[in-house]
Amino acid sequence: MADIARSEPRYGNRPTMKDVAARAGVGLKTVSRVVNGEPGVTPDTEHRVREAIEALGFRRNDSARVLRKGRTATVGLVLEDLADPFYGPLSRAVEEVARAHGALLINGSSAEDPEREQELALALCARRVDGLIVIPAGGDHRYLEPEIRAGVATVFVDRPAGGIDADAVLSDNFGGARAGVAHLVAHGHRRIGFIADRPGIHTARERLRGYRAAMEDAGLDVADAWVSLGPTDPERVAAAAGAMLSGPEPVTALFAGNNRVTVTAVRLLADRERPVALVGFDDIELADLLGVTVIAQDAAALGRTAAERLFRRLEGADEAPATVVLDTRLIARGSGEVPPAGG
Amino acid sequence: MADIARSEPRYGNRPTMKDVAARAGVGLKTVSRVVNGEPGVTPDTEHRVREAIEALGFRRNDSARVLRKGRTATVGLVLEDLADPFYGPLSRAVEEVARAHGALLINGSSAEDPEREQELALALCARRVDGLIVIPAGGDHRYLEPEIRAGVATVFVDRPAGGIDADAVLSDNFGGARAGVAHLVAHGHRRIGFIADRPGIHTARERLRGYRAAMEDAGLDVADAWVSLGPTDPERVAAAAGAMLSGPEPVTALFAGNNRVTVTAVRLLADRERPVALVGFDDIELADLLGVTVIAQDAAALGRTAAERLFRRLEGADEAPATVVLDTRLIARGSGEVPPAGG
Repeated sequence: MADIARSEPRYGNRPTMKDVAARAGVGLKTVSRVVNGEPGVTPDTEHRVREAIEALGFRRNDSARVLRKGRTATVGLVLEDLADPFYGPLSRAVEEVARAHGALLINGSSAEDPEREQELALALCARRVDGLIVIPAGGDHRYLEPEIRAGVATVFVDRPAGGIDADAVLSDNFGGARAGVAHLVAHGHRRIGFIADRPGIHTARERLRGYRAAMEDAGLDVADAWVSLGPTDPERVAAAAGAMLSGPEPVTALFAGNNRVTVTAVRLLADRERPVALVGFDDIELADLLGVTVIAQDAAALGRTAAERLFRRLEGADEAPATVVLDTRLIARGSGEVPPAGG
Repeated sequence: MADIARSEPRYGNRPTMKDVAARAGVGLKTVSRVVNGEPGVTPDTEHRVREAIEALGFRRNDSARVLRKGRTATVGLVLEDLADPFYGPLSRAVEEVARAHGALLINGSSAEDPEREQELALALCARRVDGLIVIPAGGDHRYLEPEIRAGVATVFVDRPAGGIDADAVLSDNFGGARAGVAHLVAHGHRRIGFIADRPGIHTARERLRGYRAAMEDAGLDVADAWVSLGPTDPERVAAAAGAMLSGPEPVTALFAGNNRVTVTAVRLLADRERPVALVGFDDIELADLLGVTVIAQDAAALGRTAAERLFRRLEGADEAPATVVLDTRLIARGSGEVPPAGG
C-alpha cells in the first residue's frame, strides 16, 4: 500500500520567457540562448538574464524543450555510495526508465558527504541535466532551489529532501523495521539488539524508530546497550555485536539495520556455537542459500518510481510535490525463526 | 607481476593554441574561449576553431588548465552495467583517486550496447569532462579520436580499446582462467565445463582461451558440449550447466566465467546430491561462507590504476599509451577442491 503525503502546489501562474526578457531588458532570443545554454551571449547579459530568472522564479517548459530540441535529454543521479550493492538495481532501474524516454543518465556519488552532494548536484546542473534524482547525503537542500526554479526537475529517493518541498520516493523504513523486530518477538525473543548506520542518516533513524515501536508494542524495555548506531564497516559492526552478545544478559537476536551490517553479522554468527537469531534490513545476494531472513526493499521499484515521476515532470506534469512510500516485505529464510538460545 | 606492453609515443611537437588561432584566422582569446567552453563566440567562429583544432590535432595542456582555472575538474566513467557488483569497488576506487585530485567523477552505463557507449562517452565530452575512463562495450573506439586529440585524456579499463592506440588497464583474464582450470585438473578432473558471457566480450574470450590452454597443458581434449558462451541471466546459465551435468559423460567440474555465472552455479550445485567442483572467475560477497573457490580480480586496483594513469595524463605526463595487466589470485575455499564424483 503506497502512502501519499500531499503538500501545496508550487507551480501555477508561471512566469514566461517574455517576463524574463522584459525584466532583463533583452530580447526573447537572448533569454532562449541563456536558458538553453547556447553561445552568443556576453557574460554581462547572461548575468542579467539569470538574475531575472531567479527574481521571477522562471521555470522553462521542459516538455516542449526536450521534445523540440534535437539533442538527447540527460538526467543526473546523485548516489550515496558507488560500491553499495543496494544502489545497483536502483541505478539500473533509473537508467531503464531514462532510456525508455530516449534520455541519457549520468551518475555521481556523494560518498555520504553533504558538501560533496551539493558540489556534484550543482556540477550536474551546470552541465545542463534536464532533471535530477538525488539520494541525499545532507539534510538541507535549499541550495537546489534556484536550479529547480530554473527548470531542473528534481526527485529525491531513498531519503527525503531537507528544507525544500520536493518529490520523494522512500521505502517504509519505519514499518519494515517494526515488522522485522515484531517477527523476532513472535519467535520468543525479549532481548534484541539493533545495529545500524550513523544517526545522521534518515533511514537509520527511521529503522531505529521502528525497532523501538516494535519493542514498545510488545511491552519490552530497551536497554541502552542493545542499540548501536555508527559507521557500517566490519570492525565497528563486529565490535558492537560482540558487546551485545557478551555480558550477563546478552541479546538473543540481532536486527541488522542495513545490508552492510547484515553481511558482517552473518559472518560473525556463523562462527558461534549458540545460535543467535538475525533479521536484516535489505535483501542481500545469496541470502537464500545462507538462510538469512530479511526485510526486503524493492530497490528497483524505488528507482523506477522516482524516474517515472521525474519524466512526468519533464513532460510538463504540473502536480504538487508528493512523497511516495513503498512497502517492504519480510522474507523468512531461517535465521529469523531461531528461538532464543538457552531461554 | 604487472606486464607493460609499450607502443609508439603519439604526443610530441604538439601544435599550440597559436597555431590553431593562425589557421582559424581568429585571435588567441577566441581559441581559448572555445577550448574552455566559455561564452562569447558565435557558432560560425566556434565551428572554424574546431575545424582548425581537428586539422592540427591540437591538444590543450590540461595540466595547466585544470590547475589554473577556478572550476572543479571532472572526469567521466563509462560503465558497462550499473548493477554488476564487480563495478562497485572499481567505480569507488576511481572516485577516490578523483577526489584526491580535487576532481568530480560522473558515471554512466552503456548497458553493454556499443551505440549507447558511444552516445554516452560523447555526451560526457560535450559536457566538458577533462578525462574519460571507459569500460568498453564496443570494439571500435575511433569515434573518440577527435576528443582525445582535442585534449580529453582517456584510459580504458577491464577491456582494451579497439581501433585506436590508448591506455588500458586489464586483469590477466587469460592467466587467471588458465590457473583456475589447472586447479581443477590438479584435483583430478578431466571433464570440465566452461560457462561464460557472450563471445563478443573481450574478457569472456580471454577466459575461454585460458580454459583451452589449461586443458591443452594437461593433454585433455575439450568436447564442444563443455563450452557455453552467452547471456549470463540465471535461466541461460542454468540450462547450460544442466546440459553439461547430464548425459552419459557429464562434466565433474565447472569453471564459471564471471560472477553472474558463479552465483547461478552456486545455487544450482547446492541442490545436487553428487558434488560438482566449481571455480568462479571474480570473487563474490559471502563466497567465504559458502566455500566458493574463485579466481579473484582486484576490481579496486583496476579502477585505481586507471584513474592514476588518467590524472598523470591530465597533469601533463607525455608517456606513450600502454597496457597494464594486473594479476589475478586463486582463493581456495572448498568448492574447487572437491574430487570428481563417482571416480
